[in-house]
Order: sequence, then C-alpha cells, then structure tokens
Amino acid sequence: MIAHPAAQNLQLPFLTDLFSNVSTEYPVLEALVANDIPYDTKSSFSLYINHRKTYTGITDNDRSLTMKKFAELVKRTKDKDSKTAVKELGKEFRSPGHIPICIASEKLLNERKGHTELVISLLEMAGLTPVGSGCEIMGEHGKALPKEDAKKYAEKNNLMFLEGNDIIKAWKQWSK
Amino acid sequence: MIAHPAAQNLQLPFLTDLFSNVSTEYPVLEALVANDIPYDTKSSFSLYINHRKTYTGITDNDRSLTMKKFAELVKRTKDKDSKTAVKELGKEFRSPGHIPICIASEKLLNERKGHTELVISLLEMAGLTPVGSGCEIMGEHGKALPKEDAKKYAEKNNLMFLEGNDIIKAWKQWSK
Repeated sequence: MIAHPAAQNLQLPFLTDLFSNVSTEYPVLEALVANDIPYDTKSSFSLYINHRKTYTGITDNDRSLTMKKFAELVKRTKDKDSKTAVKELGKEFRSPGHIPICIASEKLLNERKGHTELVISLLEMAGLTPVGSGCEIMGEHGKALPKEDAKKYAEKNNLMFLEGNDIIKAWKQWSK
Repeated sequence: MIAHPAAQNLQLPFLTDLFSNVSTEYPVLEALVANDIPYDTKSSFSLYINHRKTYTGITDNDRSLTMKKFAELVKRTKDKDSKTAVKELGKEFRSPGHIPICIASEKLLNERKGHTELVISLLEMAGLTPVGSGCEIMGEHGKALPKEDAKKYAEKNNLMFLEGNDIIKAWKQWSK
C-alpha cells in the first residue's frame, strides 16, 4: 500500500487503467474487467512486484524482503525526480511478482474508506513514509479471523489493535 | 497453472509479453523487467484473477473458490471456440485479482522443468483437465518446509508425496 503522490512519482499505474488502455489488443482484459467489486468502485491494484534478491518471491521471508525494501526505496527516492525514482525502483524490483501494490485514493479517508486508505492515513498522521503492508489474518475454516479473536491475538502477541473507526475518528480531527 | 493450448484458447497472455508491448507508454514496466529470475529464463505469469463471487479474494475460501471454478471453466470451455471461451471466462472472473495464473511451456517437461510443467505433465498423463494449483508449504522461520518435513506432513495427512524427479522419469517413459 502506497500513498497516491508517492505512486505517481514512481509512475506506478492502476492496473485497471493499463488494462483498459490495451484491451483492444487483448480482448480478454475487457472480458475480465473488474467492475463488480463488492466493496469498491475501482480496484486499487497497481503492479505486483518481487525484490530482485528474492528467489521464488513466495515464502514469508521473500515477501517480507520485498515489502521492507519497497518502503525503504520510497523513503529514499521521495525527493528525487520521477525519472531517477523509476530507475532506482527498477534496479531493485521486478514485475510480475507476488506482492501486489495497492495505491491509496488521492484524498485518502475523505474519498474512500478501504484498508489501503486507513493504513496510509495512519502513517501520514504519524509523519512516517507512506508505505504499509496489509495482511488478512486467517481463522479456522478458511475465513478471516473474527474481530474478537484478532483482539486476543493482538493482546497475546503484544501488538496494537486498532479498528477502522478509531482511525477515521482521529483522521477527522487531525485533518480539520 | 494451466497448459499452454488451454491458455491460448482463453487468450491469456504472458504478462511479460503484455508489459513489453506497452512499455513505451509505461516506462516503469521496462525498468521492472523480469530478466533476472534465478530459476528461469522467462516468467510464466499470466493474469491474476478472482472469481466474481469472492469478496476480497484473499481468504483461503475465496482463493479456493477461484481456483476450483477456474478448473471447471477450462474443462467446460475446452472444446468451444476461443471467442466463446473468453466470454465465459469473463462472466465468472475478474482481473486484477489474487490468484496468479501460470502458463506451462508448450512442450512441457521437454522444454522446462518448473513446478508448472511438473503439475501439468502429471495431469496430462492422468488424462485430466490440465489446470492445477501450486502452493508453497511454509516451515518455521519463514522459509519453505524442508523436504523431509513435507514428507512427514504428507504421511500424517494421508497425502501423496511425489518428487519432481519421479514425475520427470514417468514423463520420459510416457511420452516416448
């Protein structure tokens, strides 16, 4: 997950825009158009990347390396011109890969209230590099872990537990 | 993972080919070119899909639905003309999504000995629809589960354990 301006500096496209630009040449892209996402009007997916030092890119260690290095790259290139930033991105990462980059809405929680915007808003309020990682915590039976169980997991592992509504409330105050 | 002819009927592109076709318009794609995969000369990635009946597409249940329905779709459309097959694919699936489709080499194990070809060769020898799923079994410490541990896991869960070399040996005999 990355803030909109940072994604623009790295020239990262929304994949749906890229697909719609080439759908004449690739009719399958038009057939597969993601116009029915139950929780959203537009997919926030950009490219899927692997760090060039990963092997398959699939293991937890590989994914962790990709995510960590991507945040470092964005921090390091944020004040560089776009052309240089893209070059440095390409030196370290390849695509296609296993980590999908999601681009936050430009106006963050004022525009969309997805996990991407929640994470990036939180980072912005904290004054940190606007790159975060999202993961679904799985419960038994193949579904997401219920909230109460996620809370217990957080307590047990000494992690911060925040709900979307907490972040939205803080954001409203902060962005006044 | 899907056999090459089945992917062609569905007009599924290699993502690297698609990217290289539009890299003038999207310079970031050229920067990110996947020309240094440690185990391969060319990425076998095609599009990433979700079944339209998934919610996020992320949970095990959602991924399982996408994979199962994709295999059923390929089975159902294999003798239909390409245009109809693409239309039926698009009715059921959207892209971008969370399940990357990998396309096997045309000559399977005679050309490349990756997991994609191992799985599709096995299905072909068994006379089954040439669509399989691959997953990395994770061990502790974020790496893939060592072979001996995977063997124990298979025994405990009453699963078949096969090594790549077993499949290659059988393939050589079968394809004579």
